[in-house]
Amino acid sequence: MSNTKVSGTSPINRRTLLKAGLATGTAAVAGGALTGTARADGDPLITEIQDWNRYLGDGVQARPYGVPSEFEAHVVRRDVEWLTASTESSVNFTPLHELEGIITPNGLCFERHHGGIAEIDPANHRLMINGLVDKQLVFTMEDLKRFPRENRVYFLECAANSGMEWRGAQLNGCQYTHGMIHCVVYTGVPLKYLLQEAGVKTNGKWILPEGADAAAMTRSVPIEKALDDCLVAFKMNGEALRPEQGYPLRLVVPGWEGNMWVKWLRRIEVGDEPWHHREETSKYTDLLANGKSRRFTWVMDVKSVITNPSPQAPVTHGKGPLVISGVAWSGNGRVTRVDVSIDGGRNWHTARIDGPSLPKAMHRFYLDIDWDGSDLLLQSRAIDEMGYVQPTKEELRVSRGENSIYHNNGIQTWHVKTDGTVENVEIS
Amino acid sequence: MSNTKVSGTSPINRRTLLKAGLATGTAAVAGGALTGTARADGDPLITEIQDWNRYLGDGVQARPYGVPSEFEAHVVRRDVEWLTASTESSVNFTPLHELEGIITPNGLCFERHHGGIAEIDPANHRLMINGLVDKQLVFTMEDLKRFPRENRVYFLECAANSGMEWRGAQLNGCQYTHGMIHCVVYTGVPLKYLLQEAGVKTNGKWILPEGADAAAMTRSVPIEKALDDCLVAFKMNGEALRPEQGYPLRLVVPGWEGNMWVKWLRRIEVGDEPWHHREETSKYTDLLANGKSRRFTWVMDVKSVITNPSPQAPVTHGKGPLVISGVAWSGNGRVTRVDVSIDGGRNWHTARIDGPSLPKAMHRFYLDIDWDGSDLLLQSRAIDEMGYVQPTKEELRVSRGENSIYHNNGIQTWHVKTDGTVENVEIS
Repeated sequence: MSNTKVSGTSPINRRTLLKAGLATGTAAVAGGALTGTARADGDPLITEIQDWNRYLGDGVQARPYGVPSEFEAHVVRRDVEWLTASTESSVNFTPLHELEGIITPNGLCFERHHGGIAEIDPANHRLMINGLVDKQLVFTMEDLKRFPRENRVYFLECAANSGMEWRGAQLNGCQYTHGMIHCVVYTGVPLKYLLQEAGVKTNGKWILPEGADAAAMTRSVPIEKALDDCLVAFKMNGEALRPEQGYPLRLVVPGWEGNMWVKWLRRIEVGDEPWHHREETSKYTDLLANGKSRRFTWVMDVKSVITNPSPQAPVTHGKGPLVISGVAWSGNGRVTRVDVSIDGGRNWHTARIDGPSLPKAMHRFYLDIDWDGSDLLLQSRAIDEMGYVQPTKEELRVSRGENSIYHNNGIQTWHVKTDGTVENVEIS
Repeated sequence: MSNTKVSGTSPINRRTLLKAGLATGTAAVAGGALTGTARADGDPLITEIQDWNRYLGDGVQARPYGVPSEFEAHVVRRDVEWLTASTESSVNFTPLHELEGIITPNGLCFERHHGGIAEIDPANHRLMINGLVDKQLVFTMEDLKRFPRENRVYFLECAANSGMEWRGAQLNGCQYTHGMIHCVVYTGVPLKYLLQEAGVKTNGKWILPEGADAAAMTRSVPIEKALDDCLVAFKMNGEALRPEQGYPLRLVVPGWEGNMWVKWLRRIEVGDEPWHHREETSKYTDLLANGKSRRFTWVMDVKSVITNPSPQAPVTHGKGPLVISGVAWSGNGRVTRVDVSIDGGRNWHTARIDGPSLPKAMHRFYLDIDWDGSDLLLQSRAIDEMGYVQPTKEELRVSRGENSIYHNNGIQTWHVKTDGTVENVEIS
């Protein structure tokens, strides 16, 4: 795909970047005095009556379920064909560069499937709880909707998000480098209520959620997490889960890696030890430089990325006021601070976190600057309420090597050139 | 429409309700012990492998922009044909009984048009600020996106929401009685930045926002509100505004009646007095019993409604644990408490407000009860941070008569019958 050209990976390229000299953009300013950017009067598009101001438009029966404007047709999930062998076991990416705020619209939430999308009639769906329980239970969807329910905003990030970037700047756009994440409001039943109903035996220390899709996805989850904040969710952003997100039922595992959030949830087995199934051994473990693997790297650590400007969203208006926008998140709780650098990490400015700040949810940040038109090396660095500071990619490589593609929460660099185009680069 | 039959309006009907005796449902219980509702083991839908567990499903290229499951085709906006003469100047309703949490999906946000949906290419859209300003300005969409922006969750309620209920219980479902409301995350530029850029003259006391649709909707807004929390918004729930919600630009007037939130915003004129245009004189004013009208009833006062169970969402599982769910909101700020009655207002239980509590946003509340199968008369009563208590419909009629259809925030009553069906009624 033209949007995914490999670039900026060679040492030469890095040297070139350094020789070019780092940004001299002026410090961040608030308020953005825009004198001069507003068009002069006499623009016929405002002084003349336009057709849409002259004729009746569609009425209220045109779209019982609404869709975006035809002028937004470019705002879609995209995949990278060469990443995977099949589309049934593959991934597509959220267009982060087109979005704002902290909520991802349901139609744009990235997808990751291991056996394609299961199409399930909720009337025929069941959830079984079995294993080390006093009473094996089978619930219909109606049964589940009789338990007390909760609504929580959580991000969901794939453990492999940014994985292609371990070995250097690869994919030219934040949709591809960071788009395996979304953030929605989930409505569901706390899993602890269902486990209490079944009665977990004293030797029940782990659960194994199982999906009803062709891959029958399974992961081992410690009972402490299951009894803490996990939800058995049936709605996202107010409406039913989308088919590609597990309709009619998905497990929500707040702050932990995405593939534990089992979709099309059909069974929860309680056991006394982890199962070590395929998706937690041959996959979703981090192979270290010494050949050993880290086991059970569940939490998605603090991370951030600048979404605008970025390679897919260049600066088209020239120098002057520029809104730098981005997202940050942490599986450990709230993001308490985000710093932004426009000179590749030499100087940092505290960004403005705007909108609700909720634990284990996406946060939106801004830095409003007055761009002098010189080269910028944009970076963002998030800090969470545990005091964890987002590391550089170099620091990650020193501690974990380059064998793994998982859990890359390193700092991303965008090179904004004088012509406004943006490239994915690394500096060292 | 079959969903909108007129019922429960005659005194006889009200007496009948009283004779039937009020609910004896037991008090609210938390946790909902569900022994017995879970199906016995041996259900082939869980013990046997199903087709969707056996075959690969659609891959990640199937839907670049996702849509709901085919099994959710009934979750749509609906209009009431006899309410209006044309569909271009009409309204449809949010299916509140199908939703959860506090965010309304963009595709289900109710519509109210006065000249149909304007279809606008954002490249050809302009916003002019003129009148009593130092410098008349015309902004392109790109210009506006260079100002600092904010993200805020706000409800938008039409002043006529519940208007048909002034004269008694009319429409049989909360989609029709309360569905002229939605709540989304707006992203936009604080209007005060644009007005500061233009420079409001000392005698500039009002603004007149104007729409680019065929109705050229205008309303007078005091400068104090314009400089307080109004936004010029270009995104809702993270993505671009939907065409029916004003794409590419809409004025957000937090907590105030919906038709002031001018869609397809093309011009903001600054003046020294209100304009008294058609939509704030012949319409959107409250005619009192004495023949005089209340002028400028901007704030949408505290209000709530039980969404489940309700006439469109009957109880299908018989007695035992029952989740009573509803929404509450106030144009004055946060909702601090919601009380729920199951016996027509004789006894009140404090409901559980769940999820984010944000000013001028929708709140979700629950009362989890153990239903004994007897008749219920469900009511909810919200209280906001100003201490304002949602009134009964009788109290509203005493103070304002029955001439107006606007600003009905009275307490709604649902009659849950022993067979689980639900009817819109009034008791007195």
